[in-house]
Amino acid sequence: MFNFKVHANDKKSKARLGKITTYHGIIDTPSFVAVGTQGTVKGLAPQDLKETGVQILFGNTYHLHLRPGEDLVKEFGGLGKFMSWYGPTITDSGGFQVFSLGRGKTLIRTRNNAEDFSLVQHVVPQGSAPLVKIAEEGVVFRSHIDGSLHTFTPEKSIEIQKKLGADIVLAFDECAPHPSSFGYTKQAMERTHRWALRSLGVSQGKQYYPWKQALYGIVQGGVYKDLRKESARFISSLPFNGIAIGGVSVGESKKEMRNVLDWVMPLLPDNKPIHLLGIGEIDDIFDAIEKGVDTFDCVIPTRFGRYGIVFVHPPQGNLKNRFRIDINKTKFSKDKGPLSKDCVCYTCKTFTRAYIHHLFRAGELLAYRLASYHNMFFINNLVKKIRGAILEEGFEEIKEKWMK
Amino acid sequence: MFNFKVHANDKKSKARLGKITTYHGIIDTPSFVAVGTQGTVKGLAPQDLKETGVQILFGNTYHLHLRPGEDLVKEFGGLGKFMSWYGPTITDSGGFQVFSLGRGKTLIRTRNNAEDFSLVQHVVPQGSAPLVKIAEEGVVFRSHIDGSLHTFTPEKSIEIQKKLGADIVLAFDECAPHPSSFGYTKQAMERTHRWALRSLGVSQGKQYYPWKQALYGIVQGGVYKDLRKESARFISSLPFNGIAIGGVSVGESKKEMRNVLDWVMPLLPDNKPIHLLGIGEIDDIFDAIEKGVDTFDCVIPTRFGRYGIVFVHPPQGNLKNRFRIDINKTKFSKDKGPLSKDCVCYTCKTFTRAYIHHLFRAGELLAYRLASYHNMFFINNLVKKIRGAILEEGFEEIKEKWMK
Repeated sequence: MFNFKVHANDKKSKARLGKITTYHGIIDTPSFVAVGTQGTVKGLAPQDLKETGVQILFGNTYHLHLRPGEDLVKEFGGLGKFMSWYGPTITDSGGFQVFSLGRGKTLIRTRNNAEDFSLVQHVVPQGSAPLVKIAEEGVVFRSHIDGSLHTFTPEKSIEIQKKLGADIVLAFDECAPHPSSFGYTKQAMERTHRWALRSLGVSQGKQYYPWKQALYGIVQGGVYKDLRKESARFISSLPFNGIAIGGVSVGESKKEMRNVLDWVMPLLPDNKPIHLLGIGEIDDIFDAIEKGVDTFDCVIPTRFGRYGIVFVHPPQGNLKNRFRIDINKTKFSKDKGPLSKDCVCYTCKTFTRAYIHHLFRAGELLAYRLASYHNMFFINNLVKKIRGAILEEGFEEIKEKWMK
Repeated sequence: MFNFKVHANDKKSKARLGKITTYHGIIDTPSFVAVGTQGTVKGLAPQDLKETGVQILFGNTYHLHLRPGEDLVKEFGGLGKFMSWYGPTITDSGGFQVFSLGRGKTLIRTRNNAEDFSLVQHVVPQGSAPLVKIAEEGVVFRSHIDGSLHTFTPEKSIEIQKKLGADIVLAFDECAPHPSSFGYTKQAMERTHRWALRSLGVSQGKQYYPWKQALYGIVQGGVYKDLRKESARFISSLPFNGIAIGGVSVGESKKEMRNVLDWVMPLLPDNKPIHLLGIGEIDDIFDAIEKGVDTFDCVIPTRFGRYGIVFVHPPQGNLKNRFRIDINKTKFSKDKGPLSKDCVCYTCKTFTRAYIHHLFRAGELLAYRLASYHNMFFINNLVKKIRGAILEEGFEEIKEKWMK
């Protein structure tokens, strides 16, 4: 079971309300997708995810393949059941990690919302490149855990994802680094298109679970308008269940991300859900939804949470401070208010800024959890409000309220 | 408001059922006291503490004085309110940390249930002793955080504890290291007795809170029978609200701990609550309760939890394996059972050993929380069962069931 229905369109923008129905539940769109890289959303238990309004979880095939391995996950009933998350799940193809981790820090340091930073520091060995080879057949890379050699091909990626058992799986793609030349980006995009066909080809084989695993194709093409349009047209022409837009979180400026959406979105089919990979800052969320994106994933709520960077509502939060404060700062050491005045999450209803500041200063585990919980609630709550606005007063009104 | 009533005595042992009534609630005794060193029980939120059956929290004056400071805690309504724990609290005098941290690793490494190990490694600077001076007046020491000089006297310790606002506070004492000579131990004990008088003297001064802060005296005397008896008699003769037994978690063998209890307990008054400092292994708990101890605190549930050492019920858990398994071990990587088969805690009802093993292998924050939660529930649940047994079938029966 997998289907997508648009229930309402915003009057002035491309923002739309929809429902993705999966075997494991319904996702009201637009929806944030929480990232649970290694089979856990860092610092949060499944009950926290429910409480903070998470509708769907994103697992990383690269990490889960290396540890604990897809066969073990299958033995435990799939990713969701393994981690005791009973809602919908999505897995990526593994490609993003292979390329981004393989190419070293610079690629994934350029934006805050890329993959886990602590991991990255640990991953890139001195002077050696874990990414061994990119070829037509697939990619050879070294494990960041033990240096062992591994190969991902479209066939292998889909097979792993089938065993992981997510409701939505992604075609295997090459995410070219930023900056890349037009020539290399074109080459990578064309390979991605051939890999998309191979991913489609194998996706109908042996099924391990009673539920439908929807397959999304991925639009690439870097920062080049012609390539992006070509990719959008090509991927749209194939019988995917949904479409993901890749390569916008690996170094492009926010302006370039908006350009990509402007080029790509008009070419994508109206009746398929559109996922934007790796996006989750507040202004990005508004822009993506405005341009018609249905779902988007990002590690920001938990990564920022672990650093003590927490979201605050307007008017304290605004475009200039990117809706966030650093709770580590001394000025919060005696602050009796909650992290964000208008927040009704467990953290904000229960603890003061001063206490959470103290926990961060003391390096206490509870700090990471409370801040991550708040951030996760904040983002899901914002997107929920946006859904309400699309139905009621209009998207533009809520965007203006936040972005002024 | 502070009182203690014994409601039932075990038929064959000295085990007893009682209630300590404080302004912030009632503690059914015997009771485990959860340790929240820096204003948080590591990895657990207040709601977890309630769910795992915690009745009372132990805060460390040394840590809280250095960070965030007792004045800030006072401004926030006391330790409990500062950390959003609305049940009873107890603080120590700060002496144990000053002496144990000051004297370096060897002292506090000898038992698993001493103060936070990760902290200790960070605390002891190469070649320098943070403990500067012990004199009749008090103790001069350096902060493990920034090396700044601080002084604790009985007056200062009580003043800090008054500001922290716990329901139970401890007299300032010197906990002699193990091993110590008879001569040094006697000298430290006699100083502790004089400090006990000074602690009593100042305890009736200015009060910062509307509630009674009960003061406990501390019995010291190391491993020497004569000294322990002398200390028990002396401390018992003073108008303390309760009595704590110190110095049994700093290096003595389990046999020596039992000796101390055998010497001391018969000399302590029947009508005051008796607290045993720093004890919490399963067999220690049985022995302490059997000899009449009412409360005892220990960091074991959360420290072990952070290491992946988790408690298991009999028959899998037994005296030989000390009722615990190391979930990091490869043999648990495919184990579909809960951490402990007979446990009904959230962790055990929700997650498999294989999943928790995976979280530990991957270094995920959730690992520490789930294991700590389980251990905390396990210990509180065991002590609850012991309370039931004292009332019903008898203490001996439950002890035999576990200790055979």
